[in-house]
Amino acid sequence: MDSYAATVARMPALRAAVAADPQRHRVLTGERPTGPLHLGHLLGTIVERVRLQRSGVEIMVILADYQVTTDRDVAVHLREYVRGAVLDQLAAGLDPQATTFFVHSAVPALNQLLLPFLSLVSEAELHRNPTVRAEHELSGRALSGLMLTYPVHQAADILFCKADLVPVGKDQLPHVELTRVIARRFAERYGPAFGVPEPMLTDAPDIPGLDGQKMSKSRGNAIGLDSTADETAALIRRARTDGERRITFDPQGRPGVSALLSTAALCTGRAPQEIAEEIGDGGSGLLKKVATEAVNTFLAPHRARRAELAAEPGLVEDVLSRGNERANMIASATLDEVREAMGMRY
Amino acid sequence: MDSYAATVARMPALRAAVAADPQRHRVLTGERPTGPLHLGHLLGTIVERVRLQRSGVEIMVILADYQVTTDRDVAVHLREYVRGAVLDQLAAGLDPQATTFFVHSAVPALNQLLLPFLSLVSEAELHRNPTVRAEHELSGRALSGLMLTYPVHQAADILFCKADLVPVGKDQLPHVELTRVIARRFAERYGPAFGVPEPMLTDAPDIPGLDGQKMSKSRGNAIGLDSTADETAALIRRARTDGERRITFDPQGRPGVSALLSTAALCTGRAPQEIAEEIGDGGSGLLKKVATEAVNTFLAPHRARRAELAAEPGLVEDVLSRGNERANMIASATLDEVREAMGMRY
Repeated sequence: MDSYAATVARMPALRAAVAADPQRHRVLTGERPTGPLHLGHLLGTIVERVRLQRSGVEIMVILADYQVTTDRDVAVHLREYVRGAVLDQLAAGLDPQATTFFVHSAVPALNQLLLPFLSLVSEAELHRNPTVRAEHELSGRALSGLMLTYPVHQAADILFCKADLVPVGKDQLPHVELTRVIARRFAERYGPAFGVPEPMLTDAPDIPGLDGQKMSKSRGNAIGLDSTADETAALIRRARTDGERRITFDPQGRPGVSALLSTAALCTGRAPQEIAEEIGDGGSGLLKKVATEAVNTFLAPHRARRAELAAEPGLVEDVLSRGNERANMIASATLDEVREAMGMRY
Repeated sequence: MDSYAATVARMPALRAAVAADPQRHRVLTGERPTGPLHLGHLLGTIVERVRLQRSGVEIMVILADYQVTTDRDVAVHLREYVRGAVLDQLAAGLDPQATTFFVHSAVPALNQLLLPFLSLVSEAELHRNPTVRAEHELSGRALSGLMLTYPVHQAADILFCKADLVPVGKDQLPHVELTRVIARRFAERYGPAFGVPEPMLTDAPDIPGLDGQKMSKSRGNAIGLDSTADETAALIRRARTDGERRITFDPQGRPGVSALLSTAALCTGRAPQEIAEEIGDGGSGLLKKVATEAVNTFLAPHRARRAELAAEPGLVEDVLSRGNERANMIASATLDEVREAMGMRY
């Protein structure tokens, strides 16, 4: 059994344990602020964060600003994207009293953990990471020191706050594996400062972009959570479908048509085949009308809440400032333990 | 002209510029606390630090505790070695009012600079560093993430305090070169936050260990600055020489004899050949007596001053605490500039 299959097999027991005593758990999750969040983020991960928070689990949301430059030269519009990410998650139901939002660049004690952790892994292990290899190839750039070492930085994210649960997709599993290795090696050399965190595979559906490919702002196939109803209508109008009048759900043969059906289905909680049958011979025009209405109806309350929150002066700044403060407090306490364990007390 | 030759050629002009206006310069220097400091450290680098400080140059002395684990699993006796390094440098004449002593592990904002800097160098550049390759081979261990990236960490040491001068031996030149590359790339991408520091080759004589090899505590060929006159006499008594009565200076043919002559010469300011002639046919016994006397006479004032300082309760703790505070203040200011330049203001 490979590590993915093993993780899948562990999921029911893990979920039961979390449900039985949610307050004993802490989740580390987050994203790189590389652009506005989109419908895929909302349905894929944020909804799950809200569910966990409401069950009583503490959530730490990291906005990994340094990691934006793993696969590009410079980060742009960081302020705007960080602000948007906070607004969208508050609008979706994350409560800043229960959930900590913080940015990498504001928590030096967290970042310092990179140093002891780098001593615990070999360069060969860093090179073997399949996700780093894939992302490096995709980037089309020379492998930077930051790209090579980012799984170690991610281990610092997880271990600084002693999160025991890390929601991941399949491609992120190697990073959690490395974090587990680092926690164990630290314990072998210096004593048990860290628990060994568990990856938590998300139940989230696979959400295609409007062209049937992976949803991504840079591909222009993503419905941004910051977009208006009109912008969404225009984006869907431009989506590539085909000339066949009869609408059918066939992701391989008709990626564009099927992506619109999937999107409408996810936003209405119905099956894509059912929606296709309803549209019948209505063609792409009707399909786009149906999809637009489904998305805009689904996003209407999110947009209204987001607009309300965006209008509150200083709200995001305040949430981040309190989150950074809390993250710093936690990171400093952990770093003190780590220095003590390593004999760095002078 | 290779970079070593170019650096050598720049030295006279650099030294003249520093001498002309010493207060405009800041030196970053330091050591890994891997053991007690020895005579080689005192004559090779500390004397030069004292000279620079007395001329009016500001000195930052880093005690690189995280870097101890680049070539070994765990660091041992860190507290003792850090304390000893501070005592020896104070005893040698470094003034904690003018010179800042600090430890890596106590300055998170410095360590955080590793992240943006890692994004500015490629993994291939890290691998090409000849000193890292040599040290890796010498260590006989798998190349760790920390060993691979330590020149980037060293760039953070130099740039965090905007040191413009870095005293180095030939083997450390590649690290200063990388620091210069990082400073230039940062300026290209984000604007000029850093000057480009200059390596300063030391004039220090080559100081052999008692066996003629490189002086190193782990080889047992080093006269520790923390040793007593009796311990020094015993160490020199055990030094391997040869049975020839006539003492001559011949580093290739008679490494043991010549190392003792060199040591006596460095401690008395005389030429080794002259001391050899004086000993004449006195043999190893007389040579060892002469060398012991030379070392113990030379070190007597250092030892007395060190003992006085060691007896002052809380002195070292106070020097480190004020140094760490100052380093943190400087590092936080630099990190603020770096975050601002990178658009990380929320």
